Amino acid sequence: MDTVRWDERGLVPVIAQEQGSNDVLMVAWMNREALLQTWARGQAVYWSRSRNKLWHKGEESGHVQTVHDIRLDCDQDVILLKVKQEHGIACHTGRHSCFYLQLDGEGWQAVEPVLCDPERIYR
Amino acid sequence: MDTVRWDERGLVPVIAQEQGSNDVLMVAWMNREALLQTWARGQAVYWSRSRNKLWHKGEESGHVQTVHDIRLDCDQDVILLKVKQEHGIACHTGRHSCFYLQLDGEGWQAVEPVLCDPERIYR
Repeated sequence: MDTVRWDERGLVPVIAQEQGSNDVLMVAWMNREALLQTWARGQAVYWSRSRNKLWHKGEESGHVQTVHDIRLDCDQDVILLKVKQEHGIACHTGRHSCFYLQLDGEGWQAVEPVLCDPERIYR
Repeated sequence: MDTVRWDERGLVPVIAQEQGSNDVLMVAWMNREALLQTWARGQAVYWSRSRNKLWHKGEESGHVQTVHDIRLDCDQDVILLKVKQEHGIACHTGRHSCFYLQLDGEGWQAVEPVLCDPERIYR
């Protein structure tokens, strides 16, 4: 735990990457407790900065992330999770990945399909 | 440019992912100018927080990143680059990826090989 260089808020950014496809699904945050719970449960538990509490990913949507590998970078301040993404949907917009905006000469364009209406995910 | 939610320092975190393998190579930071230069050059230009200046990745090591795709996430505060990594080495330790520390029951273990002695990369 002390190897991780938690920031002044006690947090580090966490990348969730899909096992198999290696797609980058999302970026969230963890504190110590979130990392401990992720390790203990084998499912991704983040720290929600907006709600200021632990966030067991999928607790509302069912889009749980089963964790296969936990990595830390050379600066010890970013964590990378390899996960199996339940239902294949990581983004609250109903898309596979949160990184669906692509830069072109005109600006940022949404280039990934919505797989499930968000109103059906959160109800 | 105004779509990106730059933080209070004018920065956003940037994930570099290898085109093809989809391996996550590293995380760095960009400001507006870094993103503009990355777009214009077609090579990754970051903002070095330690040196407080623009950092054309590979300027010393030759480990340039050719950019194939620039993505933004749903919160508009994280950028994802798809890159071709020159020499296949992104990490200053001489490894393919910066995420070479793996969590197991004992702690964090280095599990990726050093491909090139760092003293030979930076001289």
